[in-house]
Amino acid sequence: MTHPDSANRIYQTSFASDNNTGVHPAVMEAIVAANEGDVIAYGDDPFTGRAVDVFRQHFGADTEPFFVMNGTGANVTALAAITRPFEAVICTDCAHINVDECGAPERVAGCKLLPVSAPDGKLTPEDIESCLSGRGDEHNAQPRVVSLTQATETGTVYSPEEMRAIAETAHANGMLVHMDGARICNAAAALGKPLREITRDAGVDVLSFGGTKNGLMYGEAVLFFYPDLAADYRYYRKQATQLASKMRFVAAQFTALLEGNLWLENALHANRMASLLAASVREIPGVDIVQPVESNAVFAAIPKETVTPLMEHSYFYLAGSDTPIPVARWMTSWRTTEEDVHAFAAAVKETVQRAGKMG
Amino acid sequence: MTHPDSANRIYQTSFASDNNTGVHPAVMEAIVAANEGDVIAYGDDPFTGRAVDVFRQHFGADTEPFFVMNGTGANVTALAAITRPFEAVICTDCAHINVDECGAPERVAGCKLLPVSAPDGKLTPEDIESCLSGRGDEHNAQPRVVSLTQATETGTVYSPEEMRAIAETAHANGMLVHMDGARICNAAAALGKPLREITRDAGVDVLSFGGTKNGLMYGEAVLFFYPDLAADYRYYRKQATQLASKMRFVAAQFTALLEGNLWLENALHANRMASLLAASVREIPGVDIVQPVESNAVFAAIPKETVTPLMEHSYFYLAGSDTPIPVARWMTSWRTTEEDVHAFAAAVKETVQRAGKMG
Amino acid sequence: MTHPDSANRIYQTSFASDNNTGVHPAVMEAIVAANEGDVIAYGDDPFTGRAVDVFRQHFGADTEPFFVMNGTGANVTALAAITRPFEAVICTDCAHINVDECGAPERVAGCKLLPVSAPDGKLTPEDIESCLSGRGDEHNAQPRVVSLTQATETGTVYSPEEMRAIAETAHANGMLVHMDGARICNAAAALGKPLREITRDAGVDVLSFGGTKNGLMYGEAVLFFYPDLAADYRYYRKQATQLASKMRFVAAQFTALLEGNLWLENALHANRMASLLAASVREIPGVDIVQPVESNAVFAAIPKETVTPLMEHSYFYLAGSDTPIPVARWMTSWRTTEEDVHAFAAAVKETVQRAGKMG
Amino acid sequence: MTHPDSANRIYQTSFASDNNTGVHPAVMEAIVAANEGDVIAYGDDPFTGRAVDVFRQHFGADTEPFFVMNGTGANVTALAAITRPFEAVICTDCAHINVDECGAPERVAGCKLLPVSAPDGKLTPEDIESCLSGRGDEHNAQPRVVSLTQATETGTVYSPEEMRAIAETAHANGMLVHMDGARICNAAAALGKPLREITRDAGVDVLSFGGTKNGLMYGEAVLFFYPDLAADYRYYRKQATQLASKMRFVAAQFTALLEGNLWLENALHANRMASLLAASVREIPGVDIVQPVESNAVFAAIPKETVTPLMEHSYFYLAGSDTPIPVARWMTSWRTTEEDVHAFAAAVKETVQRAGKMG
Repeated sequence: MTHPDSANRIYQTSFASDNNTGVHPAVMEAIVAANEGDVIAYGDDPFTGRAVDVFRQHFGADTEPFFVMNGTGANVTALAAITRPFEAVICTDCAHINVDECGAPERVAGCKLLPVSAPDGKLTPEDIESCLSGRGDEHNAQPRVVSLTQATETGTVYSPEEMRAIAETAHANGMLVHMDGARICNAAAALGKPLREITRDAGVDVLSFGGTKNGLMYGEAVLFFYPDLAADYRYYRKQATQLASKMRFVAAQFTALLEGNLWLENALHANRMASLLAASVREIPGVDIVQPVESNAVFAAIPKETVTPLMEHSYFYLAGSDTPIPVARWMTSWRTTEEDVHAFAAAVKETVQRAGKMG
Repeated sequence: MTHPDSANRIYQTSFASDNNTGVHPAVMEAIVAANEGDVIAYGDDPFTGRAVDVFRQHFGADTEPFFVMNGTGANVTALAAITRPFEAVICTDCAHINVDECGAPERVAGCKLLPVSAPDGKLTPEDIESCLSGRGDEHNAQPRVVSLTQATETGTVYSPEEMRAIAETAHANGMLVHMDGARICNAAAALGKPLREITRDAGVDVLSFGGTKNGLMYGEAVLFFYPDLAADYRYYRKQATQLASKMRFVAAQFTALLEGNLWLENALHANRMASLLAASVREIPGVDIVQPVESNAVFAAIPKETVTPLMEHSYFYLAGSDTPIPVARWMTSWRTTEEDVHAFAAAVKETVQRAGKMG
Repeated sequence: MTHPDSANRIYQTSFASDNNTGVHPAVMEAIVAANEGDVIAYGDDPFTGRAVDVFRQHFGADTEPFFVMNGTGANVTALAAITRPFEAVICTDCAHINVDECGAPERVAGCKLLPVSAPDGKLTPEDIESCLSGRGDEHNAQPRVVSLTQATETGTVYSPEEMRAIAETAHANGMLVHMDGARICNAAAALGKPLREITRDAGVDVLSFGGTKNGLMYGEAVLFFYPDLAADYRYYRKQATQLASKMRFVAAQFTALLEGNLWLENALHANRMASLLAASVREIPGVDIVQPVESNAVFAAIPKETVTPLMEHSYFYLAGSDTPIPVARWMTSWRTTEEDVHAFAAAVKETVQRAGKMG
Repeated sequence: MTHPDSANRIYQTSFASDNNTGVHPAVMEAIVAANEGDVIAYGDDPFTGRAVDVFRQHFGADTEPFFVMNGTGANVTALAAITRPFEAVICTDCAHINVDECGAPERVAGCKLLPVSAPDGKLTPEDIESCLSGRGDEHNAQPRVVSLTQATETGTVYSPEEMRAIAETAHANGMLVHMDGARICNAAAALGKPLREITRDAGVDVLSFGGTKNGLMYGEAVLFFYPDLAADYRYYRKQATQLASKMRFVAAQFTALLEGNLWLENALHANRMASLLAASVREIPGVDIVQPVESNAVFAAIPKETVTPLMEHSYFYLAGSDTPIPVARWMTSWRTTEEDVHAFAAAVKETVQRAGKMG
């Protein structure tokens, strides 16, 4: 998807993605502060040690956290560490690992994906069971992991009960649960629950913990809640090109995010901005919000002729291009302001109304 | 190799690796300055555009530069883009891609390596020719790329003439030349030549351009000198988990490094510090410098009993553990000071002399 | 799926699969006849040369045929040769490459599969178009090949018009067409057309030509209809473990099959036996034939309690285990006799009737 | 290596390779006899059960034997089953898995190879120890398997004592021992020992048991001597394209080979023919036998100008093309006759003498 004009622009606020936003000032401060002296590379340094401790305070003392460079890296290395080449990962057909990582899970993690249809982005226990008929048959890749995204790619959020039901089905069938938590903070904020309660305590075995979309410059974490799962992870991380040499700068960002409440404040704010945006455009005739607005995303069907003018106002992506009416995905972030939302909502209203008159 | 004490220490200066050092202040400033507004992710932003231009000023207007997260990523994606699964890469047995990337080239790039013995870290045209006997035979992986490291893993530097001879042999046999330039700036500084002259103009087709070891926080670049080689690179980059979402922060660092002379100043300084260190320890009885000191590394054979006490002073790595006498690798960086060198050289002298008396 | 009793049995006729049947006598004679003297291994022998010629007589003089060991090998090496690691293959969700090869395409060919729902086993041009929205976007694996199975896994057969429509859509979008022809002879027999007309002339670019299910002992062929597609195939074949050393014995079988009409006679007979079986059980109350019987397969829903007793009579597989009523897959072969069919149909009738009385 | 004339020829006897030879009559009889009735595919049949029993009689009741299609398949699936993606296999630089399988181990088994120099084709305990310095370091692929070839690629044979010393070193370091036994029968014949004594009892954990070079049409076996190593092997076999559908025909060949003494008679004969050939050419001035003749291979340096005329007499391969004097590899087989040897030796003598006169 080309957007030639966008490449030369710095926006006040983009609704294209929460990764269009920069770095939270407190995170930037932590980066600058970590630039002190020399330390051993690859994680044997006090900054990394501190960030590991901070994660353990959130998730339990026997949690094994590791830092990686980005979200694809977190997902791919997590799946590589808990699957063998003949094993498979059950996920939704709209899962980021299935549609947005250019085949990296198959290629780098080396496992087959078993996508199931999920219009709202959420897996169910029945979906898992529908994938099990070939267990024990050498002709079939063997399901070993259930991977869920929280918050989902459609902006919805699994409740802890939904998560637990999925995890019980997975575990009862000898499978592990991986969570792609690129927006796990947004989910926790939406549910009003501690991070541990909606992940480890809800049955997740391995978590890709997202930072970049919630105010970091770069870096994600992979958390193993059972140490034996993590035993050889560092080899997979290195082999998959995800080992950072100056790791202190990744670690320091997570300390800044998670030692206090920054993770929650950022996520709560982003979620509020999405709610405000949804509320502001919901009543516009011609705009149809097609997914529940539960985190920091608004999916809205809009008239075809409004796509280009609205993208010129603030670039955004369409959710699939094969729907009869285009569905816009608008993401909010920790930096989105109420004024930004009002301005964009006004632009939507005006553009849609103008299109209505000309139509 | 464990170093339990090291993990909790911040050193004034470490001689373990140039990636133990932090971020150059000018680079850090550039990072902070890039944190302005929202921009499109994944490289469609003005910061990335500017860094691309800067690279083209150094290497030619038709150069195709791409940014990645780290050195393994640069090498692996570069090799992936120019090989097919049945093709092979000729390199030295001590090449970083052969010994220090945990099998990433084979696994992620998907190519076989053909290592040749090279005690000084340098390939020769004859080495290449010795790998060609199976060309056209389906039983043999087909040599397609010659990969060289500049400066080499042993601290030596290829002259432009040596490079050209290798490249001529490679090209005459239908192969491409990849350079692992993790320390390409140190090589350019050592040779007193422009970057282009010792890479593109010496026959290199694809260059992994290192930044992290020369003052950056994270990020390397992959440069293709012929646009058709780059045609599908971005898919390989994404699939190999090396696409940064907030790419502006990688790009801004390279602009800071390369728009002025910072790349050269940093490298010249690091090289000078290695020369100074070598000069300071060369005459100590019991210390034997075993490789020419041409860039920012000193390889010194030292008495076995001095290894542990010296590592306690300042941690460092041994170059292989199977030599009868241990060989220490001491790296210098843009931040190493003359005082650091003198203090370390004094520690070496004292430790070796004490060992001599007790021996 | 375990079948402990079956392992010790030699059946008069099995309806489990056309690969439960042995080797056609004429093929066995050809194998024995090829055991003469020594010949160069790996295909440089007169037997292979003759089989290549025979294939070219069927498919055109510029066809490039290669011999492999089995069907998985044919599909995987064919796909490997025409895709790059970031490319994807569109297929049905019930395609053999998607469900019955234990992830071999992803793992060995190294490409992502894009399965689309196809209850009758047949792809449509619309299915292909639904997979194209991510073209040019580095986040998406890039569709490069459309792979169809002929006859399909559900026993249906594409008409030449259907094939051409698919191929036109594929080619118009810069994609290639691969056909998994494990039962291509059954399809040709069903359509009453020459092999070339329903493959190459209908737009197929690369064909996995099945032999084992039509009377061979082992061995399949991969045919490239455009020589440039075949340029490096032999490296992919070797690397994927599919190069036979004593290739003459694979080649001789294909000569026996294809030099005369054996390929057609075997396929016509198998198809007729399936028609006969369908006709013989169609009217039994409680038996519901759920797919059109167009080649040598009968898919019949049968009462749950009849599955075990019928399997004891003659073992067979169920088509998925998640249907409310079990669906039996009954395959016929070149060796199935009318008596076999009548005996089995009688067993079905009796077993279903008995179940009805007890139900 | 092209040999245009060879492709159209059937030789009385070729010295190019033991796989140029056809199928032993007793093996062919067994194949024909197995063509009886229908049996379940993929190994659930009485022929396979019998062959499994025969292997267990040779190697022990808890041996787990599996059948595959060819030698590359045996090696690749064996290594896949006992390594993880970050693990490595130590082998000689001339090992078949390193030089003659087009990168299949790296690509399909997914492991890195660590080749060590071995002019006589034999590994030593010291070679293994030289590869261990990076254990526990995430930057290094982790040695997990030692792979030996018996008889070696140079025709030499490990003594049971040499094997045991290697296995002890491997096991003491937590590694497994794989043996590429493409010519294991020739080694057993040379040593005058039972198969078990020179494999399992000498410390081998997993054995690729070769059949094709000793009189079979196609098919090799993989034997696991510890059942837990075999637990998931069948998935690796299927995924690596090595599962034969009509497996009975592979199994029946092994029963013919191993139920009586055919395996030994064939191997003894081939070895004797190599000894005879060596004895017949050893005294010819200009011919220099460069490897001990311990199995069924003769490596002889011959004058450069004799290569082409001798290849015209009976095609053969050169062992590497970078030696100053060409080294011919002449292989004998179960079908080589004394007359064949005498005729070839006479041709060597005459050709070399003629060359000497002209030189």
